[in-house]
Amino acid sequence: MQNFVFENPTKIIFGEGQIGRIGKEVARFGTKVLMVSGRGSIIKNGVYDQVMASLGKAKLDVVEFSGVKSNPVLSHALQGIARAREEKVDVVLAVGGGSVIDEAKTIAAGVKADHDVWDFFIGKAPIRDALPVLTVLTVSASASEMNPAAVITREEGARKFSIRSPFIQPKTSILDPTVLFTLSPAYSAYSAVDVITHMLEGYFNNTEPESLLQDRLVESIMKTVMESTEVILGNPEDYHARARIMWSATIAFNGLVTAGMGRVSLPAHMIEHSLSALYDIAHGAGLSIVLPGWMRHAAGQNPAKFARLARVIFDVTETDDLAAGMKGIELLRTWFASIGSPVTLEEAGISAADIETIAGNASTLAQVWGLKNYTQDVIADILQLCTDSEKAPQ
Amino acid sequence: MQNFVFENPTKIIFGEGQIGRIGKEVARFGTKVLMVSGRGSIIKNGVYDQVMASLGKAKLDVVEFSGVKSNPVLSHALQGIARAREEKVDVVLAVGGGSVIDEAKTIAAGVKADHDVWDFFIGKAPIRDALPVLTVLTVSASASEMNPAAVITREEGARKFSIRSPFIQPKTSILDPTVLFTLSPAYSAYSAVDVITHMLEGYFNNTEPESLLQDRLVESIMKTVMESTEVILGNPEDYHARARIMWSATIAFNGLVTAGMGRVSLPAHMIEHSLSALYDIAHGAGLSIVLPGWMRHAAGQNPAKFARLARVIFDVTETDDLAAGMKGIELLRTWFASIGSPVTLEEAGISAADIETIAGNASTLAQVWGLKNYTQDVIADILQLCTDSEKAPQ
Repeated sequence: MQNFVFENPTKIIFGEGQIGRIGKEVARFGTKVLMVSGRGSIIKNGVYDQVMASLGKAKLDVVEFSGVKSNPVLSHALQGIARAREEKVDVVLAVGGGSVIDEAKTIAAGVKADHDVWDFFIGKAPIRDALPVLTVLTVSASASEMNPAAVITREEGARKFSIRSPFIQPKTSILDPTVLFTLSPAYSAYSAVDVITHMLEGYFNNTEPESLLQDRLVESIMKTVMESTEVILGNPEDYHARARIMWSATIAFNGLVTAGMGRVSLPAHMIEHSLSALYDIAHGAGLSIVLPGWMRHAAGQNPAKFARLARVIFDVTETDDLAAGMKGIELLRTWFASIGSPVTLEEAGISAADIETIAGNASTLAQVWGLKNYTQDVIADILQLCTDSEKAPQ
Repeated sequence: MQNFVFENPTKIIFGEGQIGRIGKEVARFGTKVLMVSGRGSIIKNGVYDQVMASLGKAKLDVVEFSGVKSNPVLSHALQGIARAREEKVDVVLAVGGGSVIDEAKTIAAGVKADHDVWDFFIGKAPIRDALPVLTVLTVSASASEMNPAAVITREEGARKFSIRSPFIQPKTSILDPTVLFTLSPAYSAYSAVDVITHMLEGYFNNTEPESLLQDRLVESIMKTVMESTEVILGNPEDYHARARIMWSATIAFNGLVTAGMGRVSLPAHMIEHSLSALYDIAHGAGLSIVLPGWMRHAAGQNPAKFARLARVIFDVTETDDLAAGMKGIELLRTWFASIGSPVTLEEAGISAADIETIAGNASTLAQVWGLKNYTQDVIADILQLCTDSEKAPQ
């Protein structure tokens, strides 16, 4: 186990009927709140009314700022920063999923900056302060509700980049599993893919060979997410399955399972960022395409670990590690397909002819993230493994 | 999954060579620190020198308060409170294991109280404030380094009672696995028993039948602790095994695995509190006696869950749930014995003739903890299952 610092002060209020507590929580940090949200799903599912009622009861002055899209964009965040400054808000409340939370975090940090907020994303300036951020979660996947990270796309150059800072870690997040009842089957599947990918990137891409405890935590959460996703695709209103997924998503990427793993890199996320930056596809959909291809690319470098996953999760019995590992990868790809997530570029409407363009975009991010081995050529090779022609390997 | 609030702001600094960071951490909270410690083991293992050097470097004014015993007592905590007041310290630093941390927490809360500190323990007064508490951990078991609880024994009437409050939750805890290298085999075993018991009490004694995710987390941590304890009993200086145990102990009882389980009760801990209050035996040694007896008492009420544990942890193949569960209990008891922890009252030098006295003491705590079903007669029946004559059941 490697040395680490673990500090995660976010207060999680979890359960049915808890959204009404958001007003009191926000009021701990000020009287005027910028409420950041998406494009209307919270109105349909009733979360908007619950939140507004609670904010009203706590006598908060609410400035609404909606229209955040999935794969949130810098230009919209800049509008949010301008709005927050004009209105002199004390606090930012995100009501939505990872995209809304990430844009809210960007606004909260941007308000306090006397320079271009994009400087944070390219590492030109550190975040030194931010307005307090709170969240009411409506899509479980990113764990942004309990971590210090945010991802934003700058439209110019199609750059999907990220920031990390304790200043943008949410103070309080409310997680009510019933809000997931109306999440579509497709987005429920993409969420599962995202949660699993968060964990498997750490599982395979860490710098510490001794991570038995962490591996077991990952396997436990992954099994739970897979089983529970199958349940909710049959019955979208199964409370306990939705609750297991919701809490699993949070603890899968809040720093817990990676603590002690050393430096964790996220190459599948990196490549996917280019897919969603260039084609605006759902992040989870991009990941179910990229992850199995990346795994096939990487399995040979660490066959024992890939075999472990195959045996623990899919009961693969092959004794040869590489064969077992490859079988596990195929079973994971088959499982992604079975829940309705695309597993090749073509299934998402992306032509294999675009591979060089995608690889070029991703190689820029590889430099920012310090993933030196991921040259444009290597990324192109991985993307080749994500095509229809490679779907049924020997 | 039941509704819950999870909030655990303790900063954990984990790893070899990290103790030197304590000075800077303490200095965030003041300039004068009460350093609470035990009876000399930190001098032998070099932790004392490391801590003093770090506090010196941070230019802190240090008031030493040593002599905390295991099963820490109220009279000594009262001396600590008096000392902290006289010296007008700003912050309390515990350097030790659970006993030292628990007494430090009691002192930190007691300093701010204008009434008898015992009132906190009997529920007569709530904790409304405390000095900041930080810790350098030297024995891993209680998770007190990352939770809001403390246990103290009042000598008069042999009352081992507890408190819980966010005010006494440590701000920062430093966990260096190398300090465990010199922990004796006996205390290493007792620690493992304590960690396992913390988790199994939640596993079996919660009010939520749907806790699949939590159960898997418990099983993952329990397997890791068992395997790693076997490793360190063979090689006390196996860094990774000590590290796995150290972090496992913390996350086993910091609120994570019980989040969503509803109300968790701790009947084995309750009964053990009477053993260590009356006979001053090590807490873990008491638990390895009480837990298997309590499990045999309880298995019939929830045979499926006891069977699950037996199958997952001990690969028990019996198809009948009750038979499988009982076999698992015997295997756990055998494992406790194999690591050198006592498994009957007599092995700890306690006569079966004392059962009524112990049960009488424990029934007082049962009332405070609201465990109404645990009458003196029920507790006596459980203790009977913890005797030599019951060691080899049919």
